[in-house]
Formats: sequence, structure tokens, C-alpha cells
Amino acid sequence: MADRDPSLDAARDAEPFYARVMELVGELGLLKNILPGQQQQQRRQPVIQFQTPAELPDLLPLTLTSTAPPLDDPALLQVCRQVAQLSVATSDFRFQNQQYGGVDRYGLAGALLTECLNTNQHTFEVAPVFVMCEAAVVQRVCRLIGWQQGDGIFSAGGSMAIGYGLALARYRRYPEVKRTGLFGRRPLVLFTSQEAHYSVQKAAHWHGYGLDNVVVVATDENGRMRPDALEAAILRVKEEGKDPLFVNATIGTTVLGAFDPLPDIADVCQRHGLWLHVDACWGGSVLVSDTHRPLMAGVERADSVSWDPHKMLGAPIQCSLFLTQHKGLLHQCNSHSATYLFQQDKFYDVSFDTGDKSIQCGRKADAFKLWLMWKAHGEAGLGRMVDAAFTAARYCGEEVVRRPGFRPVLASPQCTNVGFWYIPESLRGQEETPEWWERVTRVAPRVKEIMVRQGTLMVGYQPLPHKGLGNFFRLVFTAVPEVGKHEVDYVLDKIDLLGRDL
Amino acid sequence: MADRDPSLDAARDAEPFYARVMELVGELGLLKNILPGQQQQQRRQPVIQFQTPAELPDLLPLTLTSTAPPLDDPALLQVCRQVAQLSVATSDFRFQNQQYGGVDRYGLAGALLTECLNTNQHTFEVAPVFVMCEAAVVQRVCRLIGWQQGDGIFSAGGSMAIGYGLALARYRRYPEVKRTGLFGRRPLVLFTSQEAHYSVQKAAHWHGYGLDNVVVVATDENGRMRPDALEAAILRVKEEGKDPLFVNATIGTTVLGAFDPLPDIADVCQRHGLWLHVDACWGGSVLVSDTHRPLMAGVERADSVSWDPHKMLGAPIQCSLFLTQHKGLLHQCNSHSATYLFQQDKFYDVSFDTGDKSIQCGRKADAFKLWLMWKAHGEAGLGRMVDAAFTAARYCGEEVVRRPGFRPVLASPQCTNVGFWYIPESLRGQEETPEWWERVTRVAPRVKEIMVRQGTLMVGYQPLPHKGLGNFFRLVFTAVPEVGKHEVDYVLDKIDLLGRDL
Repeated sequence: MADRDPSLDAARDAEPFYARVMELVGELGLLKNILPGQQQQQRRQPVIQFQTPAELPDLLPLTLTSTAPPLDDPALLQVCRQVAQLSVATSDFRFQNQQYGGVDRYGLAGALLTECLNTNQHTFEVAPVFVMCEAAVVQRVCRLIGWQQGDGIFSAGGSMAIGYGLALARYRRYPEVKRTGLFGRRPLVLFTSQEAHYSVQKAAHWHGYGLDNVVVVATDENGRMRPDALEAAILRVKEEGKDPLFVNATIGTTVLGAFDPLPDIADVCQRHGLWLHVDACWGGSVLVSDTHRPLMAGVERADSVSWDPHKMLGAPIQCSLFLTQHKGLLHQCNSHSATYLFQQDKFYDVSFDTGDKSIQCGRKADAFKLWLMWKAHGEAGLGRMVDAAFTAARYCGEEVVRRPGFRPVLASPQCTNVGFWYIPESLRGQEETPEWWERVTRVAPRVKEIMVRQGTLMVGYQPLPHKGLGNFFRLVFTAVPEVGKHEVDYVLDKIDLLGRDL
Repeated sequence: MADRDPSLDAARDAEPFYARVMELVGELGLLKNILPGQQQQQRRQPVIQFQTPAELPDLLPLTLTSTAPPLDDPALLQVCRQVAQLSVATSDFRFQNQQYGGVDRYGLAGALLTECLNTNQHTFEVAPVFVMCEAAVVQRVCRLIGWQQGDGIFSAGGSMAIGYGLALARYRRYPEVKRTGLFGRRPLVLFTSQEAHYSVQKAAHWHGYGLDNVVVVATDENGRMRPDALEAAILRVKEEGKDPLFVNATIGTTVLGAFDPLPDIADVCQRHGLWLHVDACWGGSVLVSDTHRPLMAGVERADSVSWDPHKMLGAPIQCSLFLTQHKGLLHQCNSHSATYLFQQDKFYDVSFDTGDKSIQCGRKADAFKLWLMWKAHGEAGLGRMVDAAFTAARYCGEEVVRRPGFRPVLASPQCTNVGFWYIPESLRGQEETPEWWERVTRVAPRVKEIMVRQGTLMVGYQPLPHKGLGNFFRLVFTAVPEVGKHEVDYVLDKIDLLGRDL
């Protein structure tokens, strides 16, 4: 190596640390899968360099102590390099482990700018632009849902959004509970499906309803809530002297991707006067697609809706929306009018101090990320991204049917989830006894271990105990990065290769 | 301007959009106040270019529609430029509007890397490094609190952290409530002070306790909860046949910066078997300072503690910790064991899949930002940053006493809050009748309007109705950017200049 020019070193030392970290991001190609024209590099690096919890502390100086001296910038940059290399490349198409994946390149730019501007969303005076972006996004999404008017708020994830729904449902029917609490009342009862996300149960616990007052409604063979079972459950609860309050329907269940039949569920809710919340955290991205929005028909009858654009649409984590058609209710329900934040003698229109609608006080400016994506892609562009994910999922589903050793869980999945068992050659063509299924159910964890240790793939798996199904793989297609047949084939080929000889 | 080299333009077009946004951040000097050696530029730009909610839509294409075509990258970059310019420069020392301010330069680097790695904190397999960083930070902070063991989790802000405290307190005493809910029980009662943050009331509403079951305990002349009043309140509640559960003590109240007397409050809690939560969201940053940690003496007797390093310490928003000395309780209380996320047949130690301790499912990797700051500054360095904020506050307090027209709210503030009235010349030396105070209370909103419209300063104000105090200014000193006498004088001079002739 030639002698280094000392003036260059000095210039480099003057460079802010954050800029050096961003250079590192480029150098390591962390974002290469989400940038146009760079996808061809995508398989040069492992999707994960897996180390166990016991091994990681040997590679990184994790422990914090009172005596450790500060690391100088070069040493710290080296730590950041290791952090990046030992983390999962979630924007690689080979990461199919969760209901999120790559980050949209414009959404990312919005996230970085938000970080540099470091502010909270609670009042107009500290976040004027971000407050207005939130209003613009809420307004547009309400229109896509089919509401003439509505209101909404970005929340810290879909689980918190369920909490908003529960709080509004209760407040609308029994506003006095804000003062009195739940003590001494007949139990209020919530309804959700077998396939719904566990956040309903977690929220039911926190909010004082209790798990016994969450009725889990049966689903059909595709994982959709059965409206007849819902109505029967409501009647049963009434007979027990309890007080049915809230139905959670799901648009895109976590495992099977089922879309609950909203019109029928809305009919049931209407007949019995129950609040209908639609958890569209996963499937709600179809809202931006003219082609796929009809899958959510009936959502306009919901009292509230939650949608996580950080899932299928590829907005940066977190980007989570709660919406309601009852304008004004969020503020009435949640406001506490703290005089040190929401002063009424300000010189601007304080109705834009939207923070008192929130259960949080400080709140990240997540709206801006989605707003910038919308401006960058246009609504039609966002729709095409979602459509492409569905196209990839459909192709994958066809391949799973066609390929020897692959067996689909659902005949016709509704969302971009593709669930399947992989049957190693040693198990093919045999009688499918319970013992045989027991052996099949051990395949996915074993293949998963191999792929992760190799760093070649990350694909999720799970059982579905209430359907009597053992561990199966679940591929979940998101809009970022866009994948084609080539990438789908790569993933299925790899699973075939890793599992065939088990 | 000379002719441009077309090849440079081409190179620029190939540059990813996020990189161009980061260049913009540098060009606009958004971070200049937090970078060493650049502070001298700090007053060249306004702290805010204020536009009203009615004016902003003329300057930015805020509305989203189905028909708007996507903006090309140059147009989008111009939008980002406007967003940055119309936002508040929270890292400028002239921003003294909230309990946060500038972002630490290493914390920012951690935030940017976290954004680029776009993952969730729920399982080890998708966030191996971040999970371990969270464990390291939790462990170290537990030690600083004085606990031999403990547990904790990063939450989406201090308000959610109160929720964790409420959930644990109830679960520990009445684990069956997780199943049964609150129905049919004697009312459980929470205690907090007049000066405490409103998140206790918001959480009491969501969690089904009700505002009537939040007892607001009187404070002394410095804003500290009175232990005798707390004990009297507990006895009264017991006499009423209700069930006292939870005491929220505050370390650093929002307005006055009061530190509740923890040893005496802990005695009361112990005598009556109540859960003690210490809301140290604002003042908890003294934990990292050997000099100021004694202000929190007694915190080791708390059942749970919340601390927001994104406030005084300058970690990027959000960075919020909930801690408890009851190891294992977070998991027992909040777990729901979703089989699609927390599979027990994984090949690594699944005790590192910490997501089931959380009420969230997806959760941002906030721990890494604080971990990186700790490594970069060392614990002693973090302590010096906090000490410097206290030094600035002390100087400011002295100046407020010394300067004509300034009148302090507290004789000896405990934290870095400095509250004061400004008395215009026309009101000085007069009898201080209720009418006179009424005129004084109109000064802060008026001065605030002028400073914001000029863009020269952003300082918060508020009344304190339960103490009979009209609007007063509140300067809150944070660790980032570090300010000295020069900056404090600038702020006070400016208020003097703007308000003198009112």
C-alpha cells in the first residue's frame, strides 16, 4: 500500500461519525437489495452470520461497566461494522422470516431525515410539517377505506393500535368508564378469531378485560372467521349475563393470510350493536392497490381499522396507523389536557396539537416516512408494488403445488402468505400416519437450523395447533424488495436442497 | 456559474436518494450544533421558520390523492429541503421548548444504522445484536439503580412504561386478573402527585382503573410529593373500602423538576404493601453521574423504574426504558406464547427471544442507540454531560435571581428546570394585586409568539393551576448540545429584549 496522504486522514477525522457510519452502510452493501440496479450483488453475502447467544459476547464488547474507557472513533466504527455484519440482512429477498422485510428506499430517506430532525409529534409547534403530513396520510387512508370523514393517529405498532380500538369502543358505549373504571360492571367481552394476532389477548389483559373475556371464534378451512360462529358466541355470552363489546376481524391473518368476511361480520356487529375493529396490519396494504382493494370490501363498515405499512408495503419499522370513522372520538376518549403541553392560549390553531388524541406523550414522527413514499411512488406506484408481491406469491403457490416434496397448506391462499410442508425423500410415498406427520413436523426446524447456520436463507415456520397442523414453512411476500420468479425459485430450490436428504 | 461537467450529473443521479438526503442534512447544517467544532455557526439560521397550519399547505404539496403522479428525485429532494427548513431545529441550543433537545452524535449514528438494518427486537433470530445490547443496557442500569438483579425492556416512550408498571403491580398481587379482568372487584387505587406526568391518568383510563381511582397527592412548596399526604390518602382509600395498589413517585417532575422523597415514600409503600413505581423519565439521567446520582437515593427500593434517555441525556427519540427488580415477572405477566413467533423447538437458547415480555409485538431496536452512546462516551463521559446540564441550569438560576425583571418560581430547583416569570418594565415596582398577576400571566404567551415568529428562540411556558401560578417560562437544560454561560445569557437577553416593552 502506498504512503497515505496525512491531510486525507485529517479530513477523514473531521468527518462526523454518523457520516462514517453511513459510508459503512454503503461499503457493506446493506441496502443493495433495495436500490435500483444493485440487485445483482444480492447473493454475495450471507443473509445472516449466525452466532448463538453464548458466542456473540466473544465477538462484540457487549457489556457496559463504569470503568470501561470510551472507544475512540475508529474502534467504534469497527464495532458498528461488526454490528452490521452480525445482524440480519432483512432487505435481502432471502429474508422471508417475518411479515416485514426490505425497507423502501424513499421511506428510508424519510426515516433518516426524521432522525436528524429529532422531534416529537405531540404539538404543531415542535413538529409543524410532520403534524400536517400525519393529517394528510390519515385523510387519504380514510378515503381509501371508504369513509367520508374519519380520524386517525400513528401508533407504536399494531398491538398498540388494538388498544386504541378497545379504548374507543368502551368509551363510546360507556363514557363514564373513563372515570369509574371497570370495577363492579358486568364483564365486557371481546371476540376475535382463532387465527387472529395475539395482541388482542395481550391488550385484553392490560386493559383489564381478562383473557376469560376474550372469546376465540372458530375459523373455516381457510382460516377465516365464521360469522355464524361469531353470532352464536355473542348470543351465548349474552345468555351468560355478560356484555359483548368488541369484535376484532382480521384482514390478513399472521400465519395463513386469511381475510375475514367483513360484510357478514359487519352484519352481525350491527345486529348486536358491537364495535367492529378491523386488524388489517398485515393485509391492509391492499388499500393502495385498485386491483386488490376489493379483498377488503366491507371495511367501510368498520368502526376502526389498523394498518401497518411497515409490513407488506416496506415502510421503515415502525409505521403503524390506527383509524376510526368516528371523528372527534379519539380526542374525547384520550385527552387529558395537560396544561404544560396543550396550552389553550397559543397564538395558532391548537386543534393541530394532536398529541392529546394519543395514549403516548412523546411520539415519533412516523407519518412522514409513509407520506414521502406516497409522494415518491404515487398512489399507482404503491399499488403496483403491492400487486407485484401478490404476483410473486401466486407463482410461489403454483410452484409449491407443482414441485415434488412440497405440499401446500391451503389450496387457495388469499394474501401473500404461502404455507407448505416440505417432505424429505425418505418420507415420500408412505402412509401418512400420526407418526409420519410427527416426523414431518420435525423437518422445518431442522431445515431452518441448517439455513441459518449456513446463512443462505431465513424462512419462518410454525405449527397451527388449533387446526391440528404440525410445523410448516411460511413464505411471506412483501413489496420490498420486489422479487420475481428467479428469486422464488432460488428460495424453493434451497429448501429442497437442504431438506431432501433428511 | 461555470459549465457543469455532465459526468458529475450522471454520478449524482446514480447516488441513492437516501444519500442525497443525508447530503442535504449536511448542507443545511441541521446537525451543526451537535458536532464538535461547528457550534460557532449556530445563530446564522432561525431555530424555526414558523408558518401557521393555514399557511403551510401553500408551501408544501401536503395533500395525497390517487391521481398525483410520483415526484421525480430532484423534486422530491426539494420537498425534503422544505421539510427540513420548515421544521424546528431541535438540536439548536435556542430550542428550550420541551424536555428533549439536541440528539447525541453517537446516538444519532446508532439510530441511522438501526434504520438501515430495519428489524424488530422481538426475537434473537431477527435481531441478535440488538437483543444482546438491550440485555447489556438493562443489566447496567439495574446495577446503577442498586439492584443485584432485575429485568427490563425498552418501551415506546415513558407513558407506555407507566403501563408496564401498572400491569406488573396488578399481576404480582392478583395474578388471576390476567384471566378474569377487573370486573366485580373492589376498585384498585393508584396514587400520584399533583406535579406528576399526565400519563398516569391516561394509563389509568386505558387499563380500566378509571380517573376516579387515581388519587392525586399534594406536593410541598418545591413540588415534591408529601409522604404524610400520601399515607393519609392511602388510609382514606382503605376506609372507603377500596384497594390501594400502586404509587407513582416522580424523579424530575415535568414543570418544576422536583425529585419526590423516595426513602419516605418507600417507607409508606412498604407499610401498606403497595407497588412503588419511580417515574424517572426526566430526572433519571442522573443515574449515569456519580455527582448527581445521590439525588435518586432510595430508588433501589422501587419495584419498577422508568427512564427516558431521549430526554436529558440526548439519546435519539425514542429511547425509553422500563425496569423492575422482580426478575421473571415481565415475562410471566405479559407472555402469551404465540406459536408463530416464540417457537420452543428452535435450535438456540430461546430465553433470548425477549419479545414475549413486551406488550408490543414488533418493537424498534432502541437499545442500540443508548448502548453505542455508552461505548462512545464511556460512563464517565455520560456523567460529565449530565453534570454540565446541571451546571448550566445552576448558572441560569443565579442569573434569573440577579437580573431585573426576572423572578424565579422556585428558590432552589432540584433538576435542570429553571422556571421564571418575566416582568416587563411597565409592570415593575407595582403592587402585586390579582390584576397585576393576570397581566403578568399574559406576558409569556405574547413573548413566545414574538420569538417563534422571529425564529430567534423557542422556550416553553405553562401555568401551574393547582399552585395558583400563572404562566411562567420554563428553561430545561439537556446534555445535548452542551451550553455554557454564553448561551444561557443569549437566551435570557433575548427574552429580556422581546418582553421589556410589553
